[in-house]
Amino acid sequence: MKFNSNFSDIAQNYLFAEVADRVAAYSKAHPDKKILKLGIGDVTLPLAPEVIKELHSAVDDMSRQETFKGYGPYEGYDFLRESIKNYYKSHGADLQLDEIFVSDGAKSDLGNILDIFAKDNLVSVPDPVYPVYVDTNAMAGRKVVFSSATESNGFLPMPDYKVNADIIYICSPNNPTGAAYTKAQLKEWVDYANKKGAVILFDAAYECFITDDNLARSVFQIEGAKTCAIEFCSFSKTAGFTGTRCGYTVIPRELKKDGFSANAMWYRRQATKFNGVPYIVQKGAAAVFTKKGQEEIRANLAVYQQNAKIISDCMDRLNIWYTGGKNSPYVWLKCPDGLKSWEFFDLLLNGVQVVGTPGAGFGNNGEGFFRLTSFGSREVTEEAASRLERFLSK
Amino acid sequence: MKFNSNFSDIAQNYLFAEVADRVAAYSKAHPDKKILKLGIGDVTLPLAPEVIKELHSAVDDMSRQETFKGYGPYEGYDFLRESIKNYYKSHGADLQLDEIFVSDGAKSDLGNILDIFAKDNLVSVPDPVYPVYVDTNAMAGRKVVFSSATESNGFLPMPDYKVNADIIYICSPNNPTGAAYTKAQLKEWVDYANKKGAVILFDAAYECFITDDNLARSVFQIEGAKTCAIEFCSFSKTAGFTGTRCGYTVIPRELKKDGFSANAMWYRRQATKFNGVPYIVQKGAAAVFTKKGQEEIRANLAVYQQNAKIISDCMDRLNIWYTGGKNSPYVWLKCPDGLKSWEFFDLLLNGVQVVGTPGAGFGNNGEGFFRLTSFGSREVTEEAASRLERFLSK
Repeated sequence: MKFNSNFSDIAQNYLFAEVADRVAAYSKAHPDKKILKLGIGDVTLPLAPEVIKELHSAVDDMSRQETFKGYGPYEGYDFLRESIKNYYKSHGADLQLDEIFVSDGAKSDLGNILDIFAKDNLVSVPDPVYPVYVDTNAMAGRKVVFSSATESNGFLPMPDYKVNADIIYICSPNNPTGAAYTKAQLKEWVDYANKKGAVILFDAAYECFITDDNLARSVFQIEGAKTCAIEFCSFSKTAGFTGTRCGYTVIPRELKKDGFSANAMWYRRQATKFNGVPYIVQKGAAAVFTKKGQEEIRANLAVYQQNAKIISDCMDRLNIWYTGGKNSPYVWLKCPDGLKSWEFFDLLLNGVQVVGTPGAGFGNNGEGFFRLTSFGSREVTEEAASRLERFLSK
Repeated sequence: MKFNSNFSDIAQNYLFAEVADRVAAYSKAHPDKKILKLGIGDVTLPLAPEVIKELHSAVDDMSRQETFKGYGPYEGYDFLRESIKNYYKSHGADLQLDEIFVSDGAKSDLGNILDIFAKDNLVSVPDPVYPVYVDTNAMAGRKVVFSSATESNGFLPMPDYKVNADIIYICSPNNPTGAAYTKAQLKEWVDYANKKGAVILFDAAYECFITDDNLARSVFQIEGAKTCAIEFCSFSKTAGFTGTRCGYTVIPRELKKDGFSANAMWYRRQATKFNGVPYIVQKGAAAVFTKKGQEEIRANLAVYQQNAKIISDCMDRLNIWYTGGKNSPYVWLKCPDGLKSWEFFDLLLNGVQVVGTPGAGFGNNGEGFFRLTSFGSREVTEEAASRLERFLSK
């Protein structure tokens, strides 16, 4: 037996472990200091009451023989897929029901989708980037090239026709930079993909943070996307489902090549390697789309959006360059005084006990940048912003 | 972009679709006839009260900020892994906590585990077999050889030292044949794997049906397994979780080769392509291992076990050869009068309106055999057995 030797090419992901280690060491040396954590991209508010109600009701269904549910459809229950279809329609994207696949989260599907592609595809990934895009392709032995996201392009790289990319990852609003493509910019990517015969894997996990109508909430708002794009989305950030696990993937029926249909291949892949999302969870997810559910999750999102504004307003006052903050839960700031990411990390930890994530951990172009998140509580966010303002305006 | 052309080598899985089509056609032509379905391997009894109680309590946890859970550990919560560890200990298998990975089901992990193995491994799969083993390897372009399971070996093939298999699938108690290896037989497979440097992928999804102490409930009851085996198990059949989705995979730390550790590779795979099982579901799964939970799931299993006995007693009286029925929810019977699987299917459907699964759908060696399951209700099972007895004793 031989193991997959591609695993030796995957960088060990020390980023969050290193953050945790440095915080632990500081905390041990200074047990009296209160540390404010704005580093982690995880939600903190509880599930919405409508979701809770439906979860309880679904648990009750599982307790009675008449309403008990065994194996569900691989692609998810129609009641949830219909709701997702209507949600897209409300954004001006028309989908067929069989183009929607319910999953246990965008991360799983972003990795697993690679099963339907040949090994010899050139993969294009932005730098800096959510590490999963690179690692999943490295595991499969695929070649990855990077499109350069920098201060000068606002961390929104545009297509380079000299590069013949086959599989293109786009995350908008972006993790970690918070930058989001306009519909016009995304149209350029869609045109590039159609021209090159490439596929766009569009990670829309943060679409719910978009408030500006010029920005794309879905790649399927863009003409031409149905012949070149797959979209991944999630209830994680929309409705606080990071620990409840539900997402969905949209694969248009028009995405075909060489006699293969991406939609049919993915169905076959899921039927073979997946058995669907828990009935209970799907019932909870469907509650997100009810009128009351939408009001409740919008109220939760408003808390995070206001936190993001507290942080970005602070950066404005400090005259620090950043992306995100609006239309995104992340603020991606340029470290002042030419500091490197980890130097700035240590400076903030030691100086004001505020923890963020060093940009260098997301790729070479992340060096000199720093990510703060809006998922903390209001109190922590306000205190962190006030400490940062006092400390950095000196 | 190129799609994965290996998908054209995957057989379309028409088995259950064809069964459904023939049943629908018969039902349409004979609307007055009551059809008894013993074809599907899905549970029908509701979740145990202790599980329901914990699910509700976990939903409540998600409703309050103080007890809300975001991202959980990729490998599952310790409270559940500790319970699984103790369960194995009660069967005489000692595991370390970090050898246990909680998953959304055995099927997912049986497919996904292939990520950690190189493409050029020779895969050995029994015939007949659960189609997932073959299809997942075909998708990845791996070569599959079959070990022959037949009436003469009781559908329990033993190792062939002339074959240099690298990855060996064993499912015991088997789906579809219900046959289960003794500990002594499994020791021969473990010895073979260690000698050949192969890995055994042991599917223990039906271990809870074993009552005979000579039979193996886990490959880790066998000396030497920790250097050559990975085990997949599930709450689906144990506790009726087919629609609730929870399983676990055991990867010993001793399973190492060429500088790679299977355990570390799987952790890296899961951290990259998976975000864990819902907290709510893990709490429900943990309730299965409490004293009361065990009593309740044992009562449910007893219903299925008694159904299996009703079917196998009927076969005994009819002098029909079969495997399973004891230590398994499946009865795998030899079609009488040399009938082929689909001929027997049609005979039973038309003659007594009893639906089973034609063995030919599980592989070439399944031709002439037929699977009945014990997951129906007591009433349906008793009526089906009585109809079969009257009809086949003529």
